[in-house]
Amino acid sequence: MQKRYILAPGPVAVAPEVMAKMAEPIIHHRTSQFSAILTKVRENLQYLFQTSNDVIIFASSGTGAMEASVVNMLSPGDTAIVIRAGKFGERWTELCEKYGVKAVNIDVTWGDAVDPQKVKDELDRYPDAKAVFMQAHETSTGAKQPVKEIAELTRHRENTVLVIDAITALGVYELPMDDWGLDVVVTGSQKALALPPGLSMVGVSEKAWQMSKAAKLPRFYFDFASEKKAISKQTTAFTPAVSLIMGLSMVLEEIRSQGLEAVFRHHRELAEATREGATALGLKLFSRAVSEAVTVIETPEGIDGQAIVKKLREQYGITIAGGQGQAKGRIIRISHMGYLCQWDMVIAMAAIERALVSMGCPIELGKGVGAVQAYFSKSEGK
Amino acid sequence: MQKRYILAPGPVAVAPEVMAKMAEPIIHHRTSQFSAILTKVRENLQYLFQTSNDVIIFASSGTGAMEASVVNMLSPGDTAIVIRAGKFGERWTELCEKYGVKAVNIDVTWGDAVDPQKVKDELDRYPDAKAVFMQAHETSTGAKQPVKEIAELTRHRENTVLVIDAITALGVYELPMDDWGLDVVVTGSQKALALPPGLSMVGVSEKAWQMSKAAKLPRFYFDFASEKKAISKQTTAFTPAVSLIMGLSMVLEEIRSQGLEAVFRHHRELAEATREGATALGLKLFSRAVSEAVTVIETPEGIDGQAIVKKLREQYGITIAGGQGQAKGRIIRISHMGYLCQWDMVIAMAAIERALVSMGCPIELGKGVGAVQAYFSKSEGK
Repeated sequence: MQKRYILAPGPVAVAPEVMAKMAEPIIHHRTSQFSAILTKVRENLQYLFQTSNDVIIFASSGTGAMEASVVNMLSPGDTAIVIRAGKFGERWTELCEKYGVKAVNIDVTWGDAVDPQKVKDELDRYPDAKAVFMQAHETSTGAKQPVKEIAELTRHRENTVLVIDAITALGVYELPMDDWGLDVVVTGSQKALALPPGLSMVGVSEKAWQMSKAAKLPRFYFDFASEKKAISKQTTAFTPAVSLIMGLSMVLEEIRSQGLEAVFRHHRELAEATREGATALGLKLFSRAVSEAVTVIETPEGIDGQAIVKKLREQYGITIAGGQGQAKGRIIRISHMGYLCQWDMVIAMAAIERALVSMGCPIELGKGVGAVQAYFSKSEGK
Repeated sequence: MQKRYILAPGPVAVAPEVMAKMAEPIIHHRTSQFSAILTKVRENLQYLFQTSNDVIIFASSGTGAMEASVVNMLSPGDTAIVIRAGKFGERWTELCEKYGVKAVNIDVTWGDAVDPQKVKDELDRYPDAKAVFMQAHETSTGAKQPVKEIAELTRHRENTVLVIDAITALGVYELPMDDWGLDVVVTGSQKALALPPGLSMVGVSEKAWQMSKAAKLPRFYFDFASEKKAISKQTTAFTPAVSLIMGLSMVLEEIRSQGLEAVFRHHRELAEATREGATALGLKLFSRAVSEAVTVIETPEGIDGQAIVKKLREQYGITIAGGQGQAKGRIIRISHMGYLCQWDMVIAMAAIERALVSMGCPIELGKGVGAVQAYFSKSEGK
């Protein structure tokens, strides 16, 4: 029985206690017992999203919540600005096109953060643009995007909402929804929340809520209004994924008791240590706007990233991610999200060292791990 | 710690072994390990649906899959015939209306099965109707609908698909998709499959698949074409609900090893025993087309159904369901779906007897339970 580790940016490792919680007998969803849990979950989600507005929960993957953001904000023929800084940015465009929304794309070199000036230019050029769609963190490249700066451009525009795919950002680093004036913030269960996939959550600002009333794109399962009505009755519009919500309830209590600051620090430390390890090995980071969610490392000349991923998974029992789309084969990606700690970063670096050596790459075994160790040793002293 | 029983028609009781299976460490969904599981799951779903066509899996509640059936089959302005025999029939109409589809409603008295002649009449009146939407079993009333007879009306029509909400029918009783010529068959995880909520599954006939290519309603998350493409690559279009699929994998293996006939017999026996118990108590069945999924009992004159449900849940630890919509307060509903056996029906009947007596209803304690016992005793001899 090979011992296995999951260090990919979703699905992520889930704590055994949370798994056990989800394995408890199912509660019926139309009971006061479940309503009480749901109400507490929603309060804690407001804490996580840093919002006083409602947070909606769907039984779906994150993509479902992205679709919800499109269909609840827009009408056919509307114009939206889409920041495409990687594979998930492309998804916003596909969604817009499927629904007859004109997508004005701002294409960003993979690994870069968008220049807010470009967004300003497009907003000036398309004053009727109803929405700006972006990723807070582009999972496919590991690049953090300047959400706060872009929110400065949209928050005072009465008829433009800023929609954030925060699937690999919320709960990883600071992203205060109300403070920054974000209108729709989307996340999923299988990232920073360290749960299995199957739940998505959407924070909806007052401006977005007003806008949804005029939005004419068709929707039923993903309709914000149905869910808002259900929230007022302490329930959900359709059958919720009960066991996943039990897990969510436990994870949110933990986040609340630790405090967001501690949760952010945890991710930051895992990320910084990994970057130091990679750099010590002479490896290059793919992203010019490094994130606390995922560290993306360029593979050395002549080494196939997919082969590293395969070796780690099949021989060492460790699942990391390779590249997607145009980055396939050129990068490897290590998650800092999920039920992980410093020793997982030690293991990840150790396995990468071993794979590189076995592929003939002239690196010194232990150099990356040493840097990871040094980092944690230093932060321990603090 | 009160011992609790769940006997409502969804969510249902889940076997502890299945809960434990779902509590195993999460597998990454883009691996050959998960693809192998998924491929086996899909084969076993074909067995369950009795189809040689593809069965699509969504991370959503059953309503999501109902929406998928509408948006993948139709275009704006299309006409569809909707059989409304209860609360879930109404949902088809709401869905059609949200998407600009003209719904021709056939309203059926709650508790009745639709008369196929009425469907024939509407098909004659609306020869351009692209779809007939119906429930195989209307969960809100406990009435089985004549799917086979209606399929006889649609299967030879080139441009009309029959879409079946089989959420509380598939895996409960015989509903052979290919044999009967059903085009789209929808189910959910939290019913006969005895899993937590969060997964839906859709069988798609060749005719429906061809029709989906011309269907112009917008869709992304629920797009059949994206999922079909993913099936050919042994994966899913978007992140699947990994832990629920692990549970599904285990349940389907069990169904396959027992065989559908044994699974159907199990449900039939629970239902027949419950009906005999209710009748022995002098209670009336609400449905004139009784089903093997749920037994729906009318509450005696002057007794509030909701009060029975509340008493069972709060005092006895047993969750059954009351009525919805126009049947609220008038009925109680006992599930035969889920991880249940003969002793659960004994308990249900015992609790109903006790509640009725405590509410001043002149029934004889033990009479209902005795009839349930007699039924199982007889079938044991066979």
